[in-house]
Amino acid sequence: MKLIRFGNPGEEKPGLIDAGGTARDLSAVVPDIAGATLSDEGLAALRAVDPASLPEVPADARLGACVGGTGKFICIGLNYSDHAAEAGMQVPEEPIIFHKATSAICGPNDPIIIPRGSEKTDWEVELAVIIGRRAKYVSEADALDCVAGYAVTNDVSERAYQIERSGQWTKGKSCDNFGQIGPWLVTRDEVADPQDLPMWLTVNGETMQKGSTRTMVFGVAHLVSYLSQFMTLHPGDVISTGTPPGVGMGMKPPRYLRRGDVVELGIDGLGTQRQEVIDDPEGGPT
Amino acid sequence: MKLIRFGNPGEEKPGLIDAGGTARDLSAVVPDIAGATLSDEGLAALRAVDPASLPEVPADARLGACVGGTGKFICIGLNYSDHAAEAGMQVPEEPIIFHKATSAICGPNDPIIIPRGSEKTDWEVELAVIIGRRAKYVSEADALDCVAGYAVTNDVSERAYQIERSGQWTKGKSCDNFGQIGPWLVTRDEVADPQDLPMWLTVNGETMQKGSTRTMVFGVAHLVSYLSQFMTLHPGDVISTGTPPGVGMGMKPPRYLRRGDVVELGIDGLGTQRQEVIDDPEGGPT
Repeated sequence: MKLIRFGNPGEEKPGLIDAGGTARDLSAVVPDIAGATLSDEGLAALRAVDPASLPEVPADARLGACVGGTGKFICIGLNYSDHAAEAGMQVPEEPIIFHKATSAICGPNDPIIIPRGSEKTDWEVELAVIIGRRAKYVSEADALDCVAGYAVTNDVSERAYQIERSGQWTKGKSCDNFGQIGPWLVTRDEVADPQDLPMWLTVNGETMQKGSTRTMVFGVAHLVSYLSQFMTLHPGDVISTGTPPGVGMGMKPPRYLRRGDVVELGIDGLGTQRQEVIDDPEGGPT
Repeated sequence: MKLIRFGNPGEEKPGLIDAGGTARDLSAVVPDIAGATLSDEGLAALRAVDPASLPEVPADARLGACVGGTGKFICIGLNYSDHAAEAGMQVPEEPIIFHKATSAICGPNDPIIIPRGSEKTDWEVELAVIIGRRAKYVSEADALDCVAGYAVTNDVSERAYQIERSGQWTKGKSCDNFGQIGPWLVTRDEVADPQDLPMWLTVNGETMQKGSTRTMVFGVAHLVSYLSQFMTLHPGDVISTGTPPGVGMGMKPPRYLRRGDVVELGIDGLGTQRQEVIDDPEGGPT
């Protein structure tokens, strides 16, 4: 299944994409694509619904992030060996984890907002893993059973905030609209191998990132198991698994996003995103 | 006002402490100590309620974290100059920020759970700032108007996970029950000066930390303003503002928590916490 959330920010309703590609409204069936709906039982109940019985979603509806109720938005740093090289950093011995603020989460086609005074806003196409059931001390063998599904994310990053402004990376990862998730949550039964997914990102039509989850340092099952040794994962938690080469910071000279740029990105089978880059309307004159 | 949340984990109800020190049930008045209830208007409405009209909370009720609906649990690193010195680190030029997982949040007297295999679980008494209204690009002069109130936190930390296990600090900060918040949310009108609060922490009755918010490097108003330049703060967000000297890691030799230890901590006017240290009941044999 391909699950969506649609409507105004903060008021999203649940939906699905039927076999013909039409978006259908699930709000009479479940309250949200969140919590218990993400469990195997919850997803099975959705599969039992006849999509033709559901109202169509208005064609002009905004898509929100494809999962709600996200308590943790965990990212994995330097998880593609070739991206680590372009960032001038070593592949870590263990996964590097950091949190993105959940307030950064937005819809797949919502704009990338340049924070006031920012000069180094950058892109990162990533595979997001969406947790479907509580996971603590889970083994690698059992880890994928805890996954509801997968989605595309853009782990938008402000490199000066991340690296030059004292301390931890989260400062450059947590700005508003720095976490587009969607368009769809594709349930795990429809993703034959999460470690064999081509992915790409363009800016103004020019290809910047082109890679595959095949070159991840730590794969999805390892990451879910690893994280669950440190903290309990809950339904709706999102793990963004790192980015392949081709970010703006790695270019010579570096290339960052400016107002009016258009970013498009996608992962085979998981759909595509399109974002316009805008200055922060709340930013005022700088 | 002193606001509380009481009841079983995940099912907490709102309450307050009346002038006589009795806990009263607010669940017929507001759904939670969260969201709009934390605004100036929401708090004024609570002040207008006659506490004597409210049912008493059962004396044996568990206290939960004193705030609900927390989207972000932001911590400030090395924010006391003398703590930075004991950690062997320099005072940063700008606030160091990191996120604790919100799944780490628990009640003030809930146990400290030693994660499976952990050998370096440590304590940190901190002043928590609880956001009451949306804050973005807020000036330092206006920052305290965005604060609902203050509370005690224990920023429990696993030093090996934080420092020795690749990368960012959050790995050692986000374990379950690593974030006791409470007992009370003391509204800001009752805290004359957040930069003049004595604080302390003992282990098995022995004083480990003794300090004052007077020696913070970056004060509360600066921190709220600073953070709001990077991300929007929302009602219920918690900022834990750093710890004074006396953590276990800084001792010679270092001293870490073991099963059976009892940690007590407090901040003048904000109440006290008491935690027993236990091995993780889900940890099994290691």
